[in-house]
Amino acid sequence: MEDEPATEILHATYRALCEHGYANLTVQDIAAEADRSTASIHYHYDDKDQLFVAFLDYLYDRYTERLADAGGDSPRERLDALFEVSCRADPDGQQQAFRTAMLEVMAQAPYDDAIRERLAEFDTLLFERFQEILEAGIETGAFDERVDPAAAAEFLTATITGAHTREIATGTPSDRLYATVTQYTERHLLAEGPTGGAD
Amino acid sequence: MEDEPATEILHATYRALCEHGYANLTVQDIAAEADRSTASIHYHYDDKDQLFVAFLDYLYDRYTERLADAGGDSPRERLDALFEVSCRADPDGQQQAFRTAMLEVMAQAPYDDAIRERLAEFDTLLFERFQEILEAGIETGAFDERVDPAAAAEFLTATITGAHTREIATGTPSDRLYATVTQYTERHLLAEGPTGGAD
Repeated sequence: MEDEPATEILHATYRALCEHGYANLTVQDIAAEADRSTASIHYHYDDKDQLFVAFLDYLYDRYTERLADAGGDSPRERLDALFEVSCRADPDGQQQAFRTAMLEVMAQAPYDDAIRERLAEFDTLLFERFQEILEAGIETGAFDERVDPAAAAEFLTATITGAHTREIATGTPSDRLYATVTQYTERHLLAEGPTGGAD
Repeated sequence: MEDEPATEILHATYRALCEHGYANLTVQDIAAEADRSTASIHYHYDDKDQLFVAFLDYLYDRYTERLADAGGDSPRERLDALFEVSCRADPDGQQQAFRTAMLEVMAQAPYDDAIRERLAEFDTLLFERFQEILEAGIETGAFDERVDPAAAAEFLTATITGAHTREIATGTPSDRLYATVTQYTERHLLAEGPTGGAD
């Protein structure tokens, strides 16, 4: 019970962020979204910076769950599910607004070590997830044994990050990449035979 | 002679942007960097927005030249040179500061159509350059004929964009990607035999 109000405030932060963007976000906006006074926000969080770092930690937990729940049984299915979650899914219809705000947060990161550290954690999580699935797929023979899991995971993490940046900054739809990334998997990651290891 | 002062102002804008970032950039900063009065800036550009769009157009011209001058004779060498230019080169030692500022500009793009249109042009330029080199390489037999130039170019453009975003937002060095992208080329783009088209 103790931390219920804090969680409500973090939910309200998500909605306020989608509505106002990061640069213009104020504690007043979050209070309005939470239907609370700013004093009651400050009871839980000293200032906007502290609240926002708590918000990023909350997002990180949600992101961890989302990646863990992405689904798929075989490594190939798990890889597809991970692409689906990271390139396409828009579970609450607010994805575009959220990613717009997150790009502002990324642009702020060089000026704010606490934000930068959190963003690096998100990045590492996606990287490790790719790497782990690739290792599993090489182990089962589904993926080509010549694939270097760390290098391919690095590549895919950069690609997914770039797809989001392009979507927001240039209007290039990120689901266009979904087809490309699927083609990459089929052409380059899958083993040639049904049990793999083709050379 | 007519547009010399305007060009000087654009050079000063580059330096001021690297020094102050985009969010905090003022016409005063640019004037100070150009060793001019703000009035003389306003003689050429109505306001900061108009100046900044002119600056992006100037950057686009420079970027066009830089990609054209990237070098390399064969398609493989041209591809490597393009990776080198887009992942690694730091010709004036200001790359990090410049990319930091450009990420701020990207984060601003959803709120500013003129900026967004310009960023889309940069994106298209890199995409087309990749596509053209890949097509040329398939034509000569250096690259595997199964490579889809548009899909691979889309992929690489997203990857390079993501490498820059990650470098600024999370501190992941983009030159780490250079090795990965080179490995991708060797593993996935090059034809298997010396004259290519292996299947």
